[in-house]
Amino acid sequence: MTLSPEQQAEIDDLRASPQPTLRTVSEGMEKHLYSAVPVLDHGFVRVVDYMGDDAAICQAARVSYGKGTKSVQNDEGLIRYLMRHWHSTPFEMCEVKLHVKLPVFVARQWIRHRTANVNEYSARYSILDREFYIPAPEALAAQSVVNNQGRGEALEGEEAERVLRYLRDDAMRAYDHYEEMISQDGQQGLARELARMNLPANVYTQWYWKVDLHNLLHFLRLRADAHAQYEIRVYADAICDIVSDWVPFAYKAFEDYRMGGATLSSTALDCVRRMLKGEEVTQENSGMSKGEWREFVGVLG
Amino acid sequence: MTLSPEQQAEIDDLRASPQPTLRTVSEGMEKHLYSAVPVLDHGFVRVVDYMGDDAAICQAARVSYGKGTKSVQNDEGLIRYLMRHWHSTPFEMCEVKLHVKLPVFVARQWIRHRTANVNEYSARYSILDREFYIPAPEALAAQSVVNNQGRGEALEGEEAERVLRYLRDDAMRAYDHYEEMISQDGQQGLARELARMNLPANVYTQWYWKVDLHNLLHFLRLRADAHAQYEIRVYADAICDIVSDWVPFAYKAFEDYRMGGATLSSTALDCVRRMLKGEEVTQENSGMSKGEWREFVGVLG
Amino acid sequence: MTLSPEQQAEIDDLRASPQPTLRTVSEGMEKHLYSAVPVLDHGFVRVVDYMGDDAAICQAARVSYGKGTKSVQNDEGLIRYLMRHWHSTPFEMCEVKLHVKLPVFVARQWIRHRTANVNEYSARYSILDREFYIPAPEALAAQSVVNNQGRGEALEGEEAERVLRYLRDDAMRAYDHYEEMISQDGQQGLARELARMNLPANVYTQWYWKVDLHNLLHFLRLRADAHAQYEIRVYADAICDIVSDWVPFAYKAFEDYRMGGATLSSTALDCVRRMLKGEEVTQENSGMSKGEWREFVGVLG
Amino acid sequence: MTLSPEQQAEIDDLRASPQPTLRTVSEGMEKHLYSAVPVLDHGFVRVVDYMGDDAAICQAARVSYGKGTKSVQNDEGLIRYLMRHWHSTPFEMCEVKLHVKLPVFVARQWIRHRTANVNEYSARYSILDREFYIPAPEALAAQSVVNNQGRGEALEGEEAERVLRYLRDDAMRAYDHYEEMISQDGQQGLARELARMNLPANVYTQWYWKVDLHNLLHFLRLRADAHAQYEIRVYADAICDIVSDWVPFAYKAFEDYRMGGATLSSTALDCVRRMLKGEEVTQENSGMSKGEWREFVGVLG
Repeated sequence: MTLSPEQQAEIDDLRASPQPTLRTVSEGMEKHLYSAVPVLDHGFVRVVDYMGDDAAICQAARVSYGKGTKSVQNDEGLIRYLMRHWHSTPFEMCEVKLHVKLPVFVARQWIRHRTANVNEYSARYSILDREFYIPAPEALAAQSVVNNQGRGEALEGEEAERVLRYLRDDAMRAYDHYEEMISQDGQQGLARELARMNLPANVYTQWYWKVDLHNLLHFLRLRADAHAQYEIRVYADAICDIVSDWVPFAYKAFEDYRMGGATLSSTALDCVRRMLKGEEVTQENSGMSKGEWREFVGVLG
Repeated sequence: MTLSPEQQAEIDDLRASPQPTLRTVSEGMEKHLYSAVPVLDHGFVRVVDYMGDDAAICQAARVSYGKGTKSVQNDEGLIRYLMRHWHSTPFEMCEVKLHVKLPVFVARQWIRHRTANVNEYSARYSILDREFYIPAPEALAAQSVVNNQGRGEALEGEEAERVLRYLRDDAMRAYDHYEEMISQDGQQGLARELARMNLPANVYTQWYWKVDLHNLLHFLRLRADAHAQYEIRVYADAICDIVSDWVPFAYKAFEDYRMGGATLSSTALDCVRRMLKGEEVTQENSGMSKGEWREFVGVLG
Repeated sequence: MTLSPEQQAEIDDLRASPQPTLRTVSEGMEKHLYSAVPVLDHGFVRVVDYMGDDAAICQAARVSYGKGTKSVQNDEGLIRYLMRHWHSTPFEMCEVKLHVKLPVFVARQWIRHRTANVNEYSARYSILDREFYIPAPEALAAQSVVNNQGRGEALEGEEAERVLRYLRDDAMRAYDHYEEMISQDGQQGLARELARMNLPANVYTQWYWKVDLHNLLHFLRLRADAHAQYEIRVYADAICDIVSDWVPFAYKAFEDYRMGGATLSSTALDCVRRMLKGEEVTQENSGMSKGEWREFVGVLG
Repeated sequence: MTLSPEQQAEIDDLRASPQPTLRTVSEGMEKHLYSAVPVLDHGFVRVVDYMGDDAAICQAARVSYGKGTKSVQNDEGLIRYLMRHWHSTPFEMCEVKLHVKLPVFVARQWIRHRTANVNEYSARYSILDREFYIPAPEALAAQSVVNNQGRGEALEGEEAERVLRYLRDDAMRAYDHYEEMISQDGQQGLARELARMNLPANVYTQWYWKVDLHNLLHFLRLRADAHAQYEIRVYADAICDIVSDWVPFAYKAFEDYRMGGATLSSTALDCVRRMLKGEEVTQENSGMSKGEWREFVGVLG
């Protein structure tokens, strides 16, 4: 992972000088501040700032639901209740700002989550670095033969080598030409906003990404999921660790009700009821399609 | 203004115990934390939490625009440049959470700004207090005779007295009946979610409102404007004071480019150019309607 | 229900003159256009415009997922797949615009759904009508003794009569005074934006509400739910009927996967697995709180 | 421009069969439906669906502002009033759905406008076509020597030739390798979601993009502006033509108040006032920085 020396100096400087504040402080999060967590070969996630903690979620809920919330005995119970009943607004009261360095094709998936604030490094104004994501051998997955979206086993031998050679060589050549095109060495130099179009989607970019906890958990549910592309999932996993230290009660409820939970359809619930009564339920008499049944069996596995 | 004793105790407790943090601290904002600013007869605004400061705006801009932003010599210059050219995302990197107590008819206007997070006190679950907004005599404005939206001079004498009597008596009676309806004194008691419908729109509610700086400034531009209803403008004015201490450079740029500025149409710009050349421009030869011309003359004052 | 004569004339006029279009047409929705569905005592819902149909959902999905989606044999299968796997963007490709007349306290709940476009009748500019929601006797529910939010049985006898008398009399008096205050009969007349504060929350307002299908279904899941307040649920129910005619495949999938479905936590799924293996699972050995267990038992019916 | 034969057949089919509807019909927009407007070398914009017209904007405004809006004599006057006073919600009542084919680096700028619905062709599931944006000679601009963001004159001679050769050759080689990597010709074939990372940012993608008129006009103001990158501006220009036919009054007001207008700061307005009184105002005594003054002179130019 590569923070630039300037970035590292900025971080060191900031870490050295705690200041007093009257705001809510999350001990678990303070230790993450400014420390970049390495992800993939050149990427990272680092916490730039945060607002709120578990107590702030409860405080907002108690404004909303008043005395009603006092019957729930403690903060953890209240947070579990809110998560279980899909109360989203108290979780929106926490906010986090991350600095992320990531390949462009990952950034393109990530940005589809619209309810966040983003400042991305601009290749119209500035020159991108010569940094490209090259998968580790074990991440060099074959196309799944089961479905269009998934990955199969890792490629091996000559095929793997050829793929890595293509990825590396094409990236290096594209970057060489990028540099030559914008160079003013005895020439005018192509506009940066044009030259960047020669760079492949594994080039690294970086951004500041600011999001509230409710929308962050929604992002994590989709992107830390086993069906998410590996290259975004590793970022989601790194963020999960951070969230777990920041708001431990909320994260634990999230794991139980979202990550580890499952939504069953009306038809599926009916099948469960029949099975609990001892009935033999099969795909044929379940009312589900083959795909649904396969997923249903997977959940009850 | 009335914070409940519990709210005041919570505030006193929080103010007494600063904690160290590695996050960005805005000195100007720390002094506002937890101090409720009185607004109207029973309302208030108080800062619960915040994220970022002027430097955080610049930091995000420099991630986006890289070396390009270094040519702007200092933070204030950069912030003015960003404001002037409608760069909104760096301002989104600051966030504030406010606790606001306000009459329901003000809350109904306020909530129309959708890009914020809100937790409102719920009258489905809890019982509202007997607190109603009754305008001060100088705020008891007549309907404007010029336009449908505006206010004229303050009512006086018997008319003013009658209005105040109606507002006070109807509020008190409505609240008496609200209390009687939900009372279980020898009866079942009407559901709170129904009983609340008897309360008029000047009853006070409260909420936590969390918003980023870009959207907050947009709110302030509309609601601190002279055309906004007085009862929401006083809240906007109170928030302006807070923002001015929180992010002084951004607020100053906002005053110059937004609050004190004006957008001229293509036609209006053309008129200015003609006037600067010495031409006599009148409404008739301006290409503007009477309404537009009146506003144009107002701007050129 | 009361459309004004002008509104009814506008509707009759529009219904009389179909025009040719090249756009997608939903037969089921055309029959709803401009016909107001009565809700509560003075409210209504009517479809003003719509965009898209079931086929438009599939068309958008096929742009996204390309050849992958052709393996799903037909539109209904594809829509069920999308709903089951929480693919939201294809459903966002349909849009509907409704004209709704509703009590203010219902409007206040409704507006909390932020991802919609709203134009509400403005009581700053215009004068509200003398129309108030007065619950039917069977909707005059007592406060639940089980939880703070719910409703118990309907009030009866003298208590019911007194409640209805309060609601009616207070509304009429408040409106009389509203009229007197804004009257210019020998006086200046209070500004409308102030006078409105005397009106209780059961006064009717109206708005145009425009929303995409994904966000509409989210709204319906929360507001057509048995736990929603009756007075908003009847609006949600009326809209459900409309959606069912507009996009029948999407609505059916919504009923199966959302309205009739349930999300089970990791702990709850584990209990189901244990029960299916024949183990005796009780609240005590379930790992759930009493509240969770009660809900779990309710789901398994 | 290249619609696939299947896309063209779908379009021809749809254009051949108008159907009756009770909805608002915009004659000007009907003629655009399904006709793809070519943009750049392989891109296009085509209207898939729309909702509303100029009259729908006024209808929504009249719900909001009631009788107040009747004093404005006609629809065009009302629309100009709404645009001038930044009333955004009535414009949100119109919606359009576009199918756009565009280079990835343009898509990355475009997606930053978050208030829209998007379904993009997925290169996780499907295989991208061998289509790349190669600038026409006159669009092959040099980096501006004045500012970091802009473009200078077009490159010429050998430098231009070399740039075009790099762009073409690198794209073709990257695509050859992309094809080889995913090929299952005697091998497993790399997962598509990985192989795509080898493709440069001038490869074409496509999406369905649905947006309301208010947010579309905001997009056009920024992207049809002279400072926008040429490659996105040509898309914005094509959409401007469409909007002009769809809602002619709104578009004309937009041109006058937004595209052709300018926002003057408090300081700039003061300078105008001084100049109109005959005072000699220079940068030195203006209170503006050099950059602001240059822009100010440009506006009054």
